[in-house]
Amino acid sequence: MDELEIDAVAEVELDDPVLVEGLPGVGHVGTLAVEHLLEELEGESTLVRRVYSREFPPQVSIENGVSELTCAEVYAVDVPDGRDLLLLTGDHQAQSNAGHYTLTDAFLDIAAAFGATEVYALGGVPTGELIDEYAVVGAVSDESLLEGLEDAGVEFRDDEPAGGIVGVSGLLLGLGERRGFDAACLMGETSGYLVDPKSARSVLEVLADILGFDLDYESLDERADEMEDVIGKIQEMEQQQSMDVPTDDDLRYIG
Amino acid sequence: MDELEIDAVAEVELDDPVLVEGLPGVGHVGTLAVEHLLEELEGESTLVRRVYSREFPPQVSIENGVSELTCAEVYAVDVPDGRDLLLLTGDHQAQSNAGHYTLTDAFLDIAAAFGATEVYALGGVPTGELIDEYAVVGAVSDESLLEGLEDAGVEFRDDEPAGGIVGVSGLLLGLGERRGFDAACLMGETSGYLVDPKSARSVLEVLADILGFDLDYESLDERADEMEDVIGKIQEMEQQQSMDVPTDDDLRYIG
Amino acid sequence: MDELEIDAVAEVELDDPVLVEGLPGVGHVGTLAVEHLLEELEGESTLVRRVYSREFPPQVSIENGVSELTCAEVYAVDVPDGRDLLLLTGDHQAQSNAGHYTLTDAFLDIAAAFGATEVYALGGVPTGELIDEYAVVGAVSDESLLEGLEDAGVEFRDDEPAGGIVGVSGLLLGLGERRGFDAACLMGETSGYLVDPKSARSVLEVLADILGFDLDYESLDERADEMEDVIGKIQEMEQQQSMDVPTDDDLRYIG
Amino acid sequence: MDELEIDAVAEVELDDPVLVEGLPGVGHVGTLAVEHLLEELEGESTLVRRVYSREFPPQVSIENGVSELTCAEVYAVDVPDGRDLLLLTGDHQAQSNAGHYTLTDAFLDIAAAFGATEVYALGGVPTGELIDEYAVVGAVSDESLLEGLEDAGVEFRDDEPAGGIVGVSGLLLGLGERRGFDAACLMGETSGYLVDPKSARSVLEVLADILGFDLDYESLDERADEMEDVIGKIQEMEQQQSMDVPTDDDLRYIG
Repeated sequence: MDELEIDAVAEVELDDPVLVEGLPGVGHVGTLAVEHLLEELEGESTLVRRVYSREFPPQVSIENGVSELTCAEVYAVDVPDGRDLLLLTGDHQAQSNAGHYTLTDAFLDIAAAFGATEVYALGGVPTGELIDEYAVVGAVSDESLLEGLEDAGVEFRDDEPAGGIVGVSGLLLGLGERRGFDAACLMGETSGYLVDPKSARSVLEVLADILGFDLDYESLDERADEMEDVIGKIQEMEQQQSMDVPTDDDLRYIG
Repeated sequence: MDELEIDAVAEVELDDPVLVEGLPGVGHVGTLAVEHLLEELEGESTLVRRVYSREFPPQVSIENGVSELTCAEVYAVDVPDGRDLLLLTGDHQAQSNAGHYTLTDAFLDIAAAFGATEVYALGGVPTGELIDEYAVVGAVSDESLLEGLEDAGVEFRDDEPAGGIVGVSGLLLGLGERRGFDAACLMGETSGYLVDPKSARSVLEVLADILGFDLDYESLDERADEMEDVIGKIQEMEQQQSMDVPTDDDLRYIG
Repeated sequence: MDELEIDAVAEVELDDPVLVEGLPGVGHVGTLAVEHLLEELEGESTLVRRVYSREFPPQVSIENGVSELTCAEVYAVDVPDGRDLLLLTGDHQAQSNAGHYTLTDAFLDIAAAFGATEVYALGGVPTGELIDEYAVVGAVSDESLLEGLEDAGVEFRDDEPAGGIVGVSGLLLGLGERRGFDAACLMGETSGYLVDPKSARSVLEVLADILGFDLDYESLDERADEMEDVIGKIQEMEQQQSMDVPTDDDLRYIG
Repeated sequence: MDELEIDAVAEVELDDPVLVEGLPGVGHVGTLAVEHLLEELEGESTLVRRVYSREFPPQVSIENGVSELTCAEVYAVDVPDGRDLLLLTGDHQAQSNAGHYTLTDAFLDIAAAFGATEVYALGGVPTGELIDEYAVVGAVSDESLLEGLEDAGVEFRDDEPAGGIVGVSGLLLGLGERRGFDAACLMGETSGYLVDPKSARSVLEVLADILGFDLDYESLDERADEMEDVIGKIQEMEQQQSMDVPTDDDLRYIG
């Protein structure tokens, strides 16, 4: 295994696509958002690239008894009524500091190969407590991008995110800027304690607005309702001071 | 010391051999299993390769006052009434993430050099408690391999192993698949607390069935009996709430 | 991103400049000192180099919604009545041992490119307690440099700094010496608990003396006064045993 | 700074010298022993090599205000009535696993350059308690070396050292063997809690016997007496249950 091995699984012609990143992070917001896009746009999506690397954890995941080596996946989406997309998803981030740089450069290489010049990194910004409203906080690689996002409802706050943006999402802005991309990070507010479908929906609504497509959110809303039930149960259990072991269903949304 | 140094200790002609891996892991199941194979098949076994690497811990083990630099060993076994084997064993795993990739590629290189196209990674899957029955849980690199293993009694479970398979065993499947090998991981259930000869026996019974050879399990059974005695003593001691220091014999099976 | 990427932002002719380093360290003394120099000498300063590296943490900082990739910055300062300066500043140190060597060599390369042969690393030496007087402790790359610094009031103490000097400041002396630079480390005494403007002032007074320029310290003194207020408040709060959460203003000087 | 930079400080003709290693380890036994040899044989010793590396911690030590970059030193000793020596000493070990391999290969390169074919790694083996008699436990790279060392009083014990020998001392045996050296590790028993001059003396007595030279041990004995005083005081203080802070003198032997 070299430092990077990129499998070209298929080739698709896209028109000025936008790279949308959803690797694991706070509240799994980015991952949920990109997975929802893949569900809703399944008919128009084609897996085009798999990225393997010694920078990924040395392991395989198992599904139905069959192994799959850790990788990141890129799907090309020929969106009928909106911008074409390159959706980047995966189960793991790089395991070393330098590895984040290596992988982000690889993702930007793939984006460039498909003619993309715009990048959206999706993630969450933790509030530390359960919330009712889900603002979307933003960061951009260049100030010329601020206005367009503000018009779409993105909030730019002086003191957020505290400590900047770490990992691939941050580097897509940092390295993207150096390589001539327009990059933005959209972060849905989330408690940080749970996988958060409501936060993912907030982010997707902004993205759909910006990129000009319509999305159905029913399945995300269902997951959000289930999460509400789980939170409610946990709060009850804590009040009763008896900790029954949550069922498998209960556990499905606890990241 | 280069990243890898592979000593060719001897050359042996094998016929379509199977690589069987037993590096240290949960319950030392894989290690015990491969060591037992080496004991039982001593007459037909030849040490063919030693693998040294800066990825191994920087240390020597001492036996009878003489040092031995950390390495992995490969034995060629010309099995009279079954498939030829390449047995991979060692005392340590790689010490870094990238190191696991490096070493697994080296082991697959050796397998390819001897004409092997099949790999069995042996290990344990922890149950978290002492058990009476020892099922063998499986994972494969390709779905075409499922049926043959199910026929041999291997169980494929939806939720196991949780978190996938980490380290060389997992990468033998992941990298093996990319390099054209048929790979399977056989994991004996084990508590995870102790070195487990019974679990190793379960795994060997499945492997012997698949590869078509007969094994004697007497020495493994003896070690299993001794382990039972130790477990019994520990349970007694805990009940009496007096912790005498276990003797050397007692300690021999506590990993 | 290569191991190192050095952006030449501008070119400035300097006359026998001195490299002055102020990367983050104990009490942020070095950083405060160099930032103060940049404030006071703003009219004569030009950003000449940005150093990016996979050795820096993989993140971006955000200011006014716009991202900035982790880097170190070098400013050329054409000082009217004193030695020309190359001011080195940044928010982060290297994240690995070898990375410190890589980055320090890069900083010395830049210094050499501008014709510098002298280096001053600025930092703090922790006393472990709040202090009233701020001595400046020194270390040099060669004994011929001792006398000049002693004349400027720098103290050389047998047992300080205990454990030597770690990181870029230490390596500027160690690698600087091997590469033909005259290097010195000036360390202001500081408690180690707080960002310390008084310590930074002490160090700057010595440096200004050595390099022959005049500095105004008003803004540093203001910050020092604010810090005094904060320390006073904290001491009061501890005495009352009631821990109100400090306001944002209170927190501004707690490194 | 490259991965390795070896400064040739001087050249000395030696006759079939023996490399003796005393880098920091258990009880600082090896370091004390080699430092004592350098003291006693000062007139015949010449610093020949300094080894710098990005594998060493990125720091400088300070002595009399002057910095010294972390390195290992090799002294050539033209011993009048015994085997010529190459004495290897330093304040730090490598900071990474692979780094130990890199540095050990560098030390063996230097040994080979001076025509050495024999290596003695000096260290301590911890007993976990204060002891009265100081046996010297051994390990060798080849069984042919056992008898000679047994004749000199070295003990070879089945279960020691438990866990093998880690770091440069172990790799001098492991890599030394692969590169054609005869290597032995001599480990003085020591509590492991303190810097141990008595253990260092035991090891030196064996080494002097093997290599055929006479040593004076007066200064080591003085340090041992001081250590006895310190241990006595600590035991008194513990008994009185009053922990006065030990003076500087008391602390000098608490590694």
